[in-house]
Amino acid sequence: MRTALSYLVAARRCEIDELGSLARTCDLIRVVSELVHRLQHERGVSNLFLASKGQQYAELRAQRIAATDTSHQAVLHLLDPEDNTAQFSGGARLYTKIALALHALDELQALRQSVSRLQCNPQANTERYKKLVNVLLALIFEAADVAVDPDISRLLIALFHLMQGKEFAGQERATGGAAFAAGCIGNEQKQSLEFLIEMQDQALQRFESFAGHLNREWQALQASMPLAELQGMRRSLLDSREGKLNRALSDQWFSCCTLRMDELHNVEMHIASVLQQLCRDKTSKLQHELDAQEQVLPAFGDPEAFSPLAAFTTQVSPESLRADSEQGTVGPHLTQAVVDMLHVQSARLQTLTEELAQVRTSLDERKLIERAKGILMTHRGLDEESAYRFLRRSAMDHNRRIVEVAQSVLSLSEVLPGPGKP
Amino acid sequence: MRTALSYLVAARRCEIDELGSLARTCDLIRVVSELVHRLQHERGVSNLFLASKGQQYAELRAQRIAATDTSHQAVLHLLDPEDNTAQFSGGARLYTKIALALHALDELQALRQSVSRLQCNPQANTERYKKLVNVLLALIFEAADVAVDPDISRLLIALFHLMQGKEFAGQERATGGAAFAAGCIGNEQKQSLEFLIEMQDQALQRFESFAGHLNREWQALQASMPLAELQGMRRSLLDSREGKLNRALSDQWFSCCTLRMDELHNVEMHIASVLQQLCRDKTSKLQHELDAQEQVLPAFGDPEAFSPLAAFTTQVSPESLRADSEQGTVGPHLTQAVVDMLHVQSARLQTLTEELAQVRTSLDERKLIERAKGILMTHRGLDEESAYRFLRRSAMDHNRRIVEVAQSVLSLSEVLPGPGKP
Repeated sequence: MRTALSYLVAARRCEIDELGSLARTCDLIRVVSELVHRLQHERGVSNLFLASKGQQYAELRAQRIAATDTSHQAVLHLLDPEDNTAQFSGGARLYTKIALALHALDELQALRQSVSRLQCNPQANTERYKKLVNVLLALIFEAADVAVDPDISRLLIALFHLMQGKEFAGQERATGGAAFAAGCIGNEQKQSLEFLIEMQDQALQRFESFAGHLNREWQALQASMPLAELQGMRRSLLDSREGKLNRALSDQWFSCCTLRMDELHNVEMHIASVLQQLCRDKTSKLQHELDAQEQVLPAFGDPEAFSPLAAFTTQVSPESLRADSEQGTVGPHLTQAVVDMLHVQSARLQTLTEELAQVRTSLDERKLIERAKGILMTHRGLDEESAYRFLRRSAMDHNRRIVEVAQSVLSLSEVLPGPGKP
Repeated sequence: MRTALSYLVAARRCEIDELGSLARTCDLIRVVSELVHRLQHERGVSNLFLASKGQQYAELRAQRIAATDTSHQAVLHLLDPEDNTAQFSGGARLYTKIALALHALDELQALRQSVSRLQCNPQANTERYKKLVNVLLALIFEAADVAVDPDISRLLIALFHLMQGKEFAGQERATGGAAFAAGCIGNEQKQSLEFLIEMQDQALQRFESFAGHLNREWQALQASMPLAELQGMRRSLLDSREGKLNRALSDQWFSCCTLRMDELHNVEMHIASVLQQLCRDKTSKLQHELDAQEQVLPAFGDPEAFSPLAAFTTQVSPESLRADSEQGTVGPHLTQAVVDMLHVQSARLQTLTEELAQVRTSLDERKLIERAKGILMTHRGLDEESAYRFLRRSAMDHNRRIVEVAQSVLSLSEVLPGPGKP
């Protein structure tokens, strides 16, 4: 009985440890989300700097770089391998994404240098920052996918979709900003803008479907966002027949988009706080239950007498157990209480596992589409946008869901390895 | 770069640690499988002892009890909480099942006492041992369900189905043995025998579908089993119109069934060895890759110079990096090698996760059916056999799969909580 109880307690401790790792992952997610926001801001100002041929925004850019560096340091501090290795949830999979993120961040200095020397145009610059942001987003996605608690996993997925929506908003700001700065917009740029707006809407819808009780606050917040102004400026970008734009609107566009991104970032920070609080609440609930269990343990008397192997050396007879029971130390009611605890715990863990499987299923579709896009990009030399358009067009042409087309692309790629027709 | 590499290495170490826990779980599974086999043997001899009203088999029974105790001690030794807590794979879920198993094993002394005092009949005795065996089988099932490696999970599932098949064979031996000893067989006993034979066949078919390359050895082994003799005796049990049986066949039945169970147990032990070898092979492969990675690390120079925060204090310029590259210490080819390693690792972990999800799906149907049976047993007061028959009959009546009926039972039980019509 004592050994059984030890394992009941060990199971609870395991859960507490896992939540502890998850809490540290949530801390990491918070600083990564901050870093992404600052990288987006730095990217925006870098583009203004590049567009002005280095004549303007140098000081603002230096401020943004310093802000990014503060966040970057915070991330590195949390990830210092001397302190924290093996302390995050998710094991090998999360660590691999962390390694990829750290490696991508190593490129940041070289990227900035080429901006300072005006060696790249805003478009190429946007692409390079975008890659960096995507690697960090992949880290958030992985954290959501490997989280061992369904509530926390759901919120991490909500956060991921929100961050992805905001990243599309950032790319929209860059594309629109370049057009306003140039005073004109081409058809290709218009298509890109439409694509980015559609992707934004999709990501924010997904966010809403996972946000649960945060949706009410989200609805309230949206009322305070400059959405009408944004819509108006989007129209002037997309509806300009001749492609002529009013350059004077450049600043208004930038600050309107930036305001919206800042508001979205506030929601991200709110979710990060809710996540941290959720980890604390769940941990203290489990700790409370563990304390209750540990109070039961001493009722089973001297640990030595009840060590598992002692049963063979001392031969506890049923009579002696009955005597114990009459003395009230190992009563049948106590035994029953332990068995009940075990069954409740077993059922609870089973429910958790099933909920988690359900939450993860919703990530599987996204993974399929991402992998199909990757194959199209490699095998047909498409960029991300064109790869997605290809999937969507095929889906519309054949009256199928995008995920079904993605599945076909993957199946075909297994049959036809190497670059070729997908 | 160095921090990125540290996490690449940490990811690999994580995988090695997980395989280490899994290897310890496989060690545990081996001794549990041995214990189940000995409990089945002890149960068989106990029934012979009870049937002879304690006049025969006392010495054989004492031998079997001693053999069981050796296995029981081996299990407890592996599970000694002072040494091993938190060292098995699967965390809270496996620990909870371990606690349940240990608790069930605590009842063994009392069970034996009631046999010694002839306080129960063979049927009741079989039921009590059956419960104990089922708790141990649930432990094997959980180990299969929480294993983090698809190959190992698949073999654990094969082992579980094989053990379940053997347990049905043990129950068949007990039921048939009681009939031969009594010299007659009733319709209810015949139905039970048919049920046990059907369940055995199902379990062994499932075993075959997971056994992979072990199937060839399994086919060869089956040729050496006393299957023809068993079929003959089964016919004499099931086809006896008047229900009259030749008591003299009692011993032959027992030894024929026992021989088959021993052969099945040899297969179990073989699978347990293959599992242990698989863990060792996989671990040494990962260790080999880790060693290769760790050889790359020193190429990145003094750890101090490359600590993540150093980048902010010492300001490594692109020029100095280029110089390093020319000296051949941090060459771009090396960087590319690391990025490739990261992408290969990331893709490999993703594939592992997907394979694992596929393997686990196959366990989900079984879980559904078990839960539906449990609800029928609680709400309608059915025994396990009748609950299964109910599901099967409903499936046949409505031309549906058993798992679909099980799903309906579960959905209904959510709508109609508490005992009632399922």
